[in-house]
Amino acid sequence: MFRESIKVLDCSIRDGGLINNHKFSFEFVQRVYKALAAAGVDYMEAGYKNSAQLFSREEYGPWKFCDDDLLWKMKESVENGPKVSVMADIGRADMSKIKPRKESPYDMVRVACYARDIDKCIAMVNEFHDLGYETTINIMAASRDNGPELDEALDQAEKEANTEVVYIVDSFGYFYQENIDKLAKRYKKWIKTKKLGFHGHNNQQLAFSNTIQAIINNVDYLDCSIYGMGRGAGNCPTELLLSFLKNPKFDVRPVLDSIANDFMPLQKEQKLEWGYIIPQMITGFFNSHPESAIKFRKGEDRDNYRAFWMQVSGQ
Amino acid sequence: MFRESIKVLDCSIRDGGLINNHKFSFEFVQRVYKALAAAGVDYMEAGYKNSAQLFSREEYGPWKFCDDDLLWKMKESVENGPKVSVMADIGRADMSKIKPRKESPYDMVRVACYARDIDKCIAMVNEFHDLGYETTINIMAASRDNGPELDEALDQAEKEANTEVVYIVDSFGYFYQENIDKLAKRYKKWIKTKKLGFHGHNNQQLAFSNTIQAIINNVDYLDCSIYGMGRGAGNCPTELLLSFLKNPKFDVRPVLDSIANDFMPLQKEQKLEWGYIIPQMITGFFNSHPESAIKFRKGEDRDNYRAFWMQVSGQ
Repeated sequence: MFRESIKVLDCSIRDGGLINNHKFSFEFVQRVYKALAAAGVDYMEAGYKNSAQLFSREEYGPWKFCDDDLLWKMKESVENGPKVSVMADIGRADMSKIKPRKESPYDMVRVACYARDIDKCIAMVNEFHDLGYETTINIMAASRDNGPELDEALDQAEKEANTEVVYIVDSFGYFYQENIDKLAKRYKKWIKTKKLGFHGHNNQQLAFSNTIQAIINNVDYLDCSIYGMGRGAGNCPTELLLSFLKNPKFDVRPVLDSIANDFMPLQKEQKLEWGYIIPQMITGFFNSHPESAIKFRKGEDRDNYRAFWMQVSGQ
Repeated sequence: MFRESIKVLDCSIRDGGLINNHKFSFEFVQRVYKALAAAGVDYMEAGYKNSAQLFSREEYGPWKFCDDDLLWKMKESVENGPKVSVMADIGRADMSKIKPRKESPYDMVRVACYARDIDKCIAMVNEFHDLGYETTINIMAASRDNGPELDEALDQAEKEANTEVVYIVDSFGYFYQENIDKLAKRYKKWIKTKKLGFHGHNNQQLAFSNTIQAIINNVDYLDCSIYGMGRGAGNCPTELLLSFLKNPKFDVRPVLDSIANDFMPLQKEQKLEWGYIIPQMITGFFNSHPESAIKFRKGEDRDNYRAFWMQVSGQ
């Protein structure tokens, strides 16, 4: 009934952090970590490993920096918690401060890049690998940058990168199941010795079904977030994915508690929006970056969907 | 790019009527009809053709009865509007009052039934057919009643019913794309001379992707509703479906206007809930009728998702 090779990575705090400048309280994140531990989730992504030289600690919350102390404290007193993942952006991490994995509170480092930046991405991934970390390469915007540059990036990732996983990323929430099927087959042509992963966005209410399609295509690393929290339309909801997978090690109930007790109240308190938002649906359909929809929703004309459709369609 | 044989049926007012006792103002429905006309939608389902002997006109709004006068008035002054469809429940329509199609404001009658009631359903459908109407048979709960009774119902529908379309109905929002693929193939084994239709529910955010799967499997009649409005989790959103289909006759913009100007304000004014609601997600996953979730959401414990999960799972 279930496939043991599947790993679930919850990125609520990392992708969700993009809508509140990573300003989650420590207690909130620790409760999420505990909930994911109780739910049996494999990885929790806590945020970005960004240099404080480049971003202000006043403007951004602590999960944009993921200092080692913070992550140690988060894991304190939680037994058998998920492995901890952080994202590192090319040129934004202070590599001199990265300790070897043995001395570090996190297990995995994920580097996201556009296909054109694959060389820099591989160099960074290999550095983390040499320090003992599990790594992944997340090639963004596969719905846009999918000419020969994608094949080349995949070929290099296979041959040059010391990474465990290469991710298909639907950055704009554009794909439906036939795209995922074709893309997974294309990735597999190049990626022979590593696993594949999938990170979807929910602009067209397709993040979950695309993740199911990835499962059908033997993709093993699956991203999700609680109640779908993430930038723009958000991600594949963790509660749907865990229910679908039927691995007896998963228990969806702590995630349901977390929705009711943490995510829904946070959405209200911080006045955050994510999920099925019409301008996000429009950017998804037009295979366009979510930023324009986020900006539009901050303007006075925020509910004039026709105007936004005209803007994005270029008509 | 597009398949001309596809027909889009918007059931916002009919399925949506199940959450407000069909109490839409006349002006609201007429605006929706006009929007669907401008959008190029093929059919609009206005409600039920129920007998006023059986239901109180005080308790229910006019769209539960769909009197001919009401529908004539709705169509007034709208040129090239969608064909109008009504649903008729077995034993609940006053057949003595049904006029021949030539004298009637609606074009299509859809009869929904469980597989076990196929004989009654066929008798009713044939009666409407003899009066000149297009008809469909919507076999409900295909995720539950799918033993030999389903094959038998399909065999009878093919051989005995004067109907144009037989619908696959995912009453509980349980299916994902592999189910739709298998079921469409099974239906096609029996249904050789009629078209297939699909009506999904969105409990697990899969109504749209299941509709896409139905399209892939050459299902031609597709149900949807504006902003997904419908009982429980609602339906496949019309705006997503029209955008996906790429038939130049469709224009999604009037539907976007309708969301902003009518459906979102109505949701607020009438305090209606539909869409991604966790108890609805739970009934979907457990292949269970949405009514228990609707009832739960009316109780004091409405946000205790764990309690509802325990109730539905039987644990």
